[in-house]
Amino acid sequence: MPLIDSLIDALRVLPGVGPKSAQRMAYHLLQRDRPGATRLAETLAGALRDVRHCERCNSFTEAPVCERCLSPQRDPTQLCVVEMPSDLMVMESTLAYKGLYYVLMGKLSPLDGIGPRELGFERVMARATDGVVTEVILATNFTNEGEATAHYLGEMLRARGLKVSRIARGVPVGGELEHTDLGTVAQAFTERRGW
Amino acid sequence: MPLIDSLIDALRVLPGVGPKSAQRMAYHLLQRDRPGATRLAETLAGALRDVRHCERCNSFTEAPVCERCLSPQRDPTQLCVVEMPSDLMVMESTLAYKGLYYVLMGKLSPLDGIGPRELGFERVMARATDGVVTEVILATNFTNEGEATAHYLGEMLRARGLKVSRIARGVPVGGELEHTDLGTVAQAFTERRGW
Repeated sequence: MPLIDSLIDALRVLPGVGPKSAQRMAYHLLQRDRPGATRLAETLAGALRDVRHCERCNSFTEAPVCERCLSPQRDPTQLCVVEMPSDLMVMESTLAYKGLYYVLMGKLSPLDGIGPRELGFERVMARATDGVVTEVILATNFTNEGEATAHYLGEMLRARGLKVSRIARGVPVGGELEHTDLGTVAQAFTERRGW
Repeated sequence: MPLIDSLIDALRVLPGVGPKSAQRMAYHLLQRDRPGATRLAETLAGALRDVRHCERCNSFTEAPVCERCLSPQRDPTQLCVVEMPSDLMVMESTLAYKGLYYVLMGKLSPLDGIGPRELGFERVMARATDGVVTEVILATNFTNEGEATAHYLGEMLRARGLKVSRIARGVPVGGELEHTDLGTVAQAFTERRGW
């Protein structure tokens, strides 16, 4: 196979990239942006070699333990469980949370063969029962799979005597009831707070 | 910058990839498909090192002259000019053409600073006036830029006494007039053939 076709083929490992986009990407890389292409090849090779999972939070890092987990500024008694590093970044950008994290790197997904073992629930338990953590905040998504993940983990954590909480569902800040889906409004009603 | 962020950043050189998709791609490569990611890094580095432009048709190849240009099965008196290698592949898959190609690797685009010099029109002229080519078929796209490219090149080629043709515009095969845009129908009328 000509090398250009191998490249088009190799680009299809990228999620959401079909034959047409792969072709367009290959031409762009070789014809329009060789410096960028070189940087991509080198950074990808470097990341494959050096990026690992933090021993404490399981997120991506180059060190055995990431900077965030080592920071003395964070409250080590709170542990927030999220699905992906992108969810961690969202939590961080709210500036509302000062504790530590555990990143599952996925969610329970029986159809894809991802169960508690594959997600490493025993590692979450080990992390949460370090004797310092007092509250585990479940911040998985409110999708079916995210909810199942939170439910399962919550049960396990409570069984160990840990305080477990779940981030709140409800009408978005600035949101109007008229433009919010019924399930969310119903949930916001059920989970109403004293005022 | 953490290596994972460098990777997300590097992925943004790909056309059509914004911050969100770049993040999704980086996680996928490192978390879900490391063999595919390794193949991508290696193939891209290999392509950057070895892929060059064919000395005759200007398309991508690893050899000085590509296999198609060397093939004794092709009719060397016909030269088809296309914008990109993907256009060449479309022409090839019609099985309607047995001549040779010249791939411009772009089109006239004054706003992007791409003029006749940048597109290497003098190389097209040199290729077309090899003494063997008798007809040049202009198969650039029917966009404004593709039309301008065909027009400009056609003028230059005719000035050298070469026979020049342009692939036909018209109602698509299987197309209904009612569902064809008016410009195309008008063109199909103007360029009607004796029957």
